[in-house]
Amino acid sequence: MKKEILYLKIAGIIEQQILSGTLRLGDKLPSIRTLQKVYNVSINTVRQAFLELESKSLIEPRPKSGYYVSKASQRKFSLPSVIILESLQKEQYPEHLFLKTFASSENTDITHFSLGLPEKSLLPIAQLNKSVTTVMRSLANGGATYESVQGNLNFRRTVARWAFMLEGKVTEDDVIATSGAMNGMFTCLMAVTKPGDKVAVESPAYFGILKMINAMGLEAVEIPSDPSTGLDLEALKKVLPVISACCFVVNFNNPLGTLMPDDHKKELVKMLTEWDIPLVENDIFRNVYYGAERPKPCKAFDQAGIVMLVNSISKTLAPGYRLGWIIPGKYKDKIIQQKLIQTLSTPALYQEAISHFLENGRYDHHLRTFRKIVQNNCLKLQQGIEDYFPDNTKVSQPEGGFMVWLELDKKIDTVKLFDMAIRRNITFAPGRMFTQYNQYNNCMRLNFAMEWTDKVNSDLKTLGEIASNW
Amino acid sequence: MKKEILYLKIAGIIEQQILSGTLRLGDKLPSIRTLQKVYNVSINTVRQAFLELESKSLIEPRPKSGYYVSKASQRKFSLPSVIILESLQKEQYPEHLFLKTFASSENTDITHFSLGLPEKSLLPIAQLNKSVTTVMRSLANGGATYESVQGNLNFRRTVARWAFMLEGKVTEDDVIATSGAMNGMFTCLMAVTKPGDKVAVESPAYFGILKMINAMGLEAVEIPSDPSTGLDLEALKKVLPVISACCFVVNFNNPLGTLMPDDHKKELVKMLTEWDIPLVENDIFRNVYYGAERPKPCKAFDQAGIVMLVNSISKTLAPGYRLGWIIPGKYKDKIIQQKLIQTLSTPALYQEAISHFLENGRYDHHLRTFRKIVQNNCLKLQQGIEDYFPDNTKVSQPEGGFMVWLELDKKIDTVKLFDMAIRRNITFAPGRMFTQYNQYNNCMRLNFAMEWTDKVNSDLKTLGEIASNW
Repeated sequence: MKKEILYLKIAGIIEQQILSGTLRLGDKLPSIRTLQKVYNVSINTVRQAFLELESKSLIEPRPKSGYYVSKASQRKFSLPSVIILESLQKEQYPEHLFLKTFASSENTDITHFSLGLPEKSLLPIAQLNKSVTTVMRSLANGGATYESVQGNLNFRRTVARWAFMLEGKVTEDDVIATSGAMNGMFTCLMAVTKPGDKVAVESPAYFGILKMINAMGLEAVEIPSDPSTGLDLEALKKVLPVISACCFVVNFNNPLGTLMPDDHKKELVKMLTEWDIPLVENDIFRNVYYGAERPKPCKAFDQAGIVMLVNSISKTLAPGYRLGWIIPGKYKDKIIQQKLIQTLSTPALYQEAISHFLENGRYDHHLRTFRKIVQNNCLKLQQGIEDYFPDNTKVSQPEGGFMVWLELDKKIDTVKLFDMAIRRNITFAPGRMFTQYNQYNNCMRLNFAMEWTDKVNSDLKTLGEIASNW
Repeated sequence: MKKEILYLKIAGIIEQQILSGTLRLGDKLPSIRTLQKVYNVSINTVRQAFLELESKSLIEPRPKSGYYVSKASQRKFSLPSVIILESLQKEQYPEHLFLKTFASSENTDITHFSLGLPEKSLLPIAQLNKSVTTVMRSLANGGATYESVQGNLNFRRTVARWAFMLEGKVTEDDVIATSGAMNGMFTCLMAVTKPGDKVAVESPAYFGILKMINAMGLEAVEIPSDPSTGLDLEALKKVLPVISACCFVVNFNNPLGTLMPDDHKKELVKMLTEWDIPLVENDIFRNVYYGAERPKPCKAFDQAGIVMLVNSISKTLAPGYRLGWIIPGKYKDKIIQQKLIQTLSTPALYQEAISHFLENGRYDHHLRTFRKIVQNNCLKLQQGIEDYFPDNTKVSQPEGGFMVWLELDKKIDTVKLFDMAIRRNITFAPGRMFTQYNQYNNCMRLNFAMEWTDKVNSDLKTLGEIASNW
């Protein structure tokens, strides 16, 4: 049996014991050595199983003692609803909501649950500065002359080396540097669509992609998502005949945080290959996994080259560098043509600096810390929601990333709730921003990539109280 | 009488004396003091008149001696033809030609008359590095966090201060940072056109803009240009009813180097205002003027806000920084919306570095040196063409920038000439790249922003010999 399946199997058995009450809140789990003997597996396999359970908040480690069934395992949160779109009418995109939500982004007095980025205290700024300063000295012509259109060679090599989930299939020839992931998605869509085309997105969808599709004269087709498995493949299948391209985030989707199972990814790629429909796969959250393993992208199952994998360093390192990349599949030439007319080339300095940072193992080190912080925050946030929010609040269960999606009572209008919250110096992203339809009006997205101070906790409490007093 | 007109009047009188033979090759001109008394003007006015004449290569200074009628004044180059397009059929854009011309751009053994950029030895790389290092220290968060969508405030203020030809009308609110001028033009066109729209360009046109228009699903309408006054306004007038936007370079147009007279600029803006047609004005060469004064952009005559002025630092400072800006007129909101979906923001570091460089007077200093070098090269190139090229070669007379356009004998195919030249390690840009029609097959663009070594001169000779032996 493959090691991968083994640890999941063990995790599954223990999960079953917790859910059935065989193991109860506060119970100590058998030691790693005991389980190793019981299941006749390696210590590492048991560790992976424990990590998997920890990522689902079922167990928690206590220093110098071992693993215990966690309080979080007892939570009976309902997941947000699976969305049915058929009866809805499209409405004008609520531009004013977007402006309102982000008008105060720079204000440091405000607790921003609204943003799509990690708070700067979580970014390794001093170390990045060191890499920039180091490469500045060695950079040919100080970066004043053009890079190749496709991107800096060192950077492309580094990205290729890091793309290990693609089983070594990626070389530097398969990487195109971009000005961040938004620019990557824009370039991909420019390469494979023309105005009037229909583009499938998950619903709820990241508002940036809805705005992009709209501004490009394309039409977004929202596909319902299941909060535990992601995109509804059956719903997608029905609309494929009219779809020209897809834009999905299968690993820790924004805003739900859902991880699509591998067999769904395989099926998705198979369906799109049959129809020869290009998939723009936005994979910016993949490195922020809570489980034992970095999940696979759809690209890993792509034989025909229909997947354009888009990524960036914005979610974990330096959003301001505006640096991302595309692994373009069979659309490489079209994408390079687009880059040629849009930006010509990407500045060398940050490409070299990020190569330097990654090649020196600093990224790995940073990611371990970063993941631990956001995963801990996720638990604290869920605890806070349980403590402060109305009982009928539904919460998505992110398995990675740093976003959570709340569905409140139908009567609660989160746009009005926003107006009340901002007066208390708290922001979040109202649900209505994540769709073109008149829906998700009782939903909100919360970002938890921040220092989890007492103030943050008390602001979460305030938010819960406003909702409770509705 | 205004000072501006006074020096041009005096220059005009002396020019007439040279053209009529009153002043002959090698004659010494009266001293500045003498002319000051003769015309009862300031010393400065006479100096400006001399600069004007020097920029037209009519006179030349000799160290410690004064000004002399130059050899170049005696040249009887014909200007390239004014283009008539009516009888021509559109053809597929010669993509292979583009690839061929730039395939060897990185090869330093080759003399690249083909490029659109200054050779790196003419860029102030060490000083730019100093500015980058200086601002790195003071930059908030090391530039790791987002800049505002519109651009870094210091940078926008600096650009606004430098836009002095717009008579102080520009503030930091009127500036949007971009990833270079190509990205600026792309963003402007995305904001004001939709696929299928017709966009007017000068003919011959910079191939980058032809490729861009084509890749965006727009249609380029080539407007004939007069090699001494630029765009043919009468020809433009006829097509205005079907035009959705214009993309022009009125100051030292690429490839001709033509400067459009101010009254033509005024007339152009008036015509476009009447039709409410947006003008994307690419003004990247304006600072590389040979005459006494920096010319005005069309934007200076724009009351209605129809002109989007696009600029960058790529032609004089650091192409690799990919930094430019737009002064967007009434299309500001649309352009910011486009930037939001295309790149979100522009990295802070280079914006701060360029502000620092400009505010410390380094740009002014660099420009004085840079202009002198390219103007001298222009004279040497013209001398070389006179010495080495066939007698019937026609040459544009650039008044700024660093490009010249050659029209050779009708029988000479410059694509074939390129194939012969590249074998001798010499490149240039074949004329066919600058149009969608089957024309300019006997033309070429030469870039002269390089160190004018003996090798460059001998390579120019080789080029002339290939043409002479056709």
